[in-house]
Amino acid sequence: MSWTHHKPIRLHHTDAAGIIFFPRLLELAHEAYEALLDELGHPLAEGLAADGPILPIGRCEADYLRPLKLGMTLAIEITVLREGNRSFTLGYVFRDENGVDLARAQTVHVAMDRRTGKSVALPDMVRLGLKRVQGGPVSAD
Amino acid sequence: MSWTHHKPIRLHHTDAAGIIFFPRLLELAHEAYEALLDELGHPLAEGLAADGPILPIGRCEADYLRPLKLGMTLAIEITVLREGNRSFTLGYVFRDENGVDLARAQTVHVAMDRRTGKSVALPDMVRLGLKRVQGGPVSAD
Amino acid sequence: MSWTHHKPIRLHHTDAAGIIFFPRLLELAHEAYEALLDELGHPLAEGLAADGPILPIGRCEADYLRPLKLGMTLAIEITVLREGNRSFTLGYVFRDENGVDLARAQTVHVAMDRRTGKSVALPDMVRLGLKRVQGGPVSAD
Amino acid sequence: MSWTHHKPIRLHHTDAAGIIFFPRLLELAHEAYEALLDELGHPLAEGLAADGPILPIGRCEADYLRPLKLGMTLAIEITVLREGNRSFTLGYVFRDENGVDLARAQTVHVAMDRRTGKSVALPDMVRLGLKRVQGGPVSAD
Repeated sequence: MSWTHHKPIRLHHTDAAGIIFFPRLLELAHEAYEALLDELGHPLAEGLAADGPILPIGRCEADYLRPLKLGMTLAIEITVLREGNRSFTLGYVFRDENGVDLARAQTVHVAMDRRTGKSVALPDMVRLGLKRVQGGPVSAD
Repeated sequence: MSWTHHKPIRLHHTDAAGIIFFPRLLELAHEAYEALLDELGHPLAEGLAADGPILPIGRCEADYLRPLKLGMTLAIEITVLREGNRSFTLGYVFRDENGVDLARAQTVHVAMDRRTGKSVALPDMVRLGLKRVQGGPVSAD
Repeated sequence: MSWTHHKPIRLHHTDAAGIIFFPRLLELAHEAYEALLDELGHPLAEGLAADGPILPIGRCEADYLRPLKLGMTLAIEITVLREGNRSFTLGYVFRDENGVDLARAQTVHVAMDRRTGKSVALPDMVRLGLKRVQGGPVSAD
Repeated sequence: MSWTHHKPIRLHHTDAAGIIFFPRLLELAHEAYEALLDELGHPLAEGLAADGPILPIGRCEADYLRPLKLGMTLAIEITVLREGNRSFTLGYVFRDENGVDLARAQTVHVAMDRRTGKSVALPDMVRLGLKRVQGGPVSAD
């Protein structure tokens, strides 16, 4: 049903207010997404180099529930929130070492022809990947 | 009714897919917000050092309408979307040199007591600042 | 003899230790370099898209003399430290509003064939650009 | 004699030129340093919160030997290059999966009284930590 990535909050994620600089949460979400792609056997670097559709992010959002502080090790859980014809939405929950929810985020990925820039149907390979994430733990590093 | 900040997309905003790395749009939004605070005479550094409530971001979202590319000079227009009792929401529109909308974003700022971490009423100084932004151009740099 | 770019230290440059996160100084140096390229009429985006040699950075260094804090407006002065056959070195001095030196940095740019990855002679256009920077103020924004 | 940290190059490390944005190498070096501090039982967050001297970076440098590309998993090896009275220097070698050197870096850490901003003698705890790194592998994650 989901996939979880573990990652500590490092100094470069924080700012002078003493907590995470808010856009870095989405950077951490994308890092978890890239680790998931590795796990699925389709690393992002291959996808960018290949000839098929690209999957740029068309929308993102994040909610900050509790302070995210330097040194916390986050468990970032990814789930598939929606699978459309031309796009899909991933959800992220960020928890601390005790399982307390610290933040949530979403990213919408739109399949796009890299030459025309027009939206296209989700490739079968992507549909299969989404099924594998929905179907149960791909791995837990 | 709004305030506009101009800023080029630099190499550090982009990624290997050739366009802006999506969380950097929110970094640019916050940079425009900090420039607005300067203009209002309340720079962020003073706010963080003072004793009153802090205004951490409790939620953000962004929509990417067209590719944001290296070298484009963005006009980032800030408006007040909502003024509540304990929080306010800013809206951002990102346009290119021809006035074409490239992206939109929102940030929700929640007034918080820095010792207890509890939400509190928006300080009068913040209400005044929001009125100035709503009342018309503070400046156009 | 030099060229100066002005830029405030923003929240995203800082970290939980309350000052600039040290690699961001080099990000600011590169931002000043990109502004210089704009001023010379050779924006980086054009250089990357064109067919000639690229100029990746082969070495960098930075010295931190005084704390660089949120809200300071930096004057970043760029000078040409060395012009070689296949590379050149730029120097950066970072000063506060009172002209006090806060930091220094250097970047070494190596001309490289984008297909072979081998170093090549500096293109004439680059030599001309370096002369213009050495010859006196290109501009002072 | 050294300590090694493994970390993939993620999209947020890269730029529109298709390789790592050069200051991000130093960000990766610091992330490896923070992982080392965790391993030594002295996480950075504790050091910043405690009352003793702080250890800001007074100098850094980096050499880029080969292109660092999206998806490569770096082995970052840390060694102690110099131990002085009031500062120490760490060296970093970045290798790919085949053991090929891609880049090198150094950071100089200066012990400083957090109230006066003056340099002070290295605390004993830091000397012990340096000895442990010099003495052999602390761990290999």
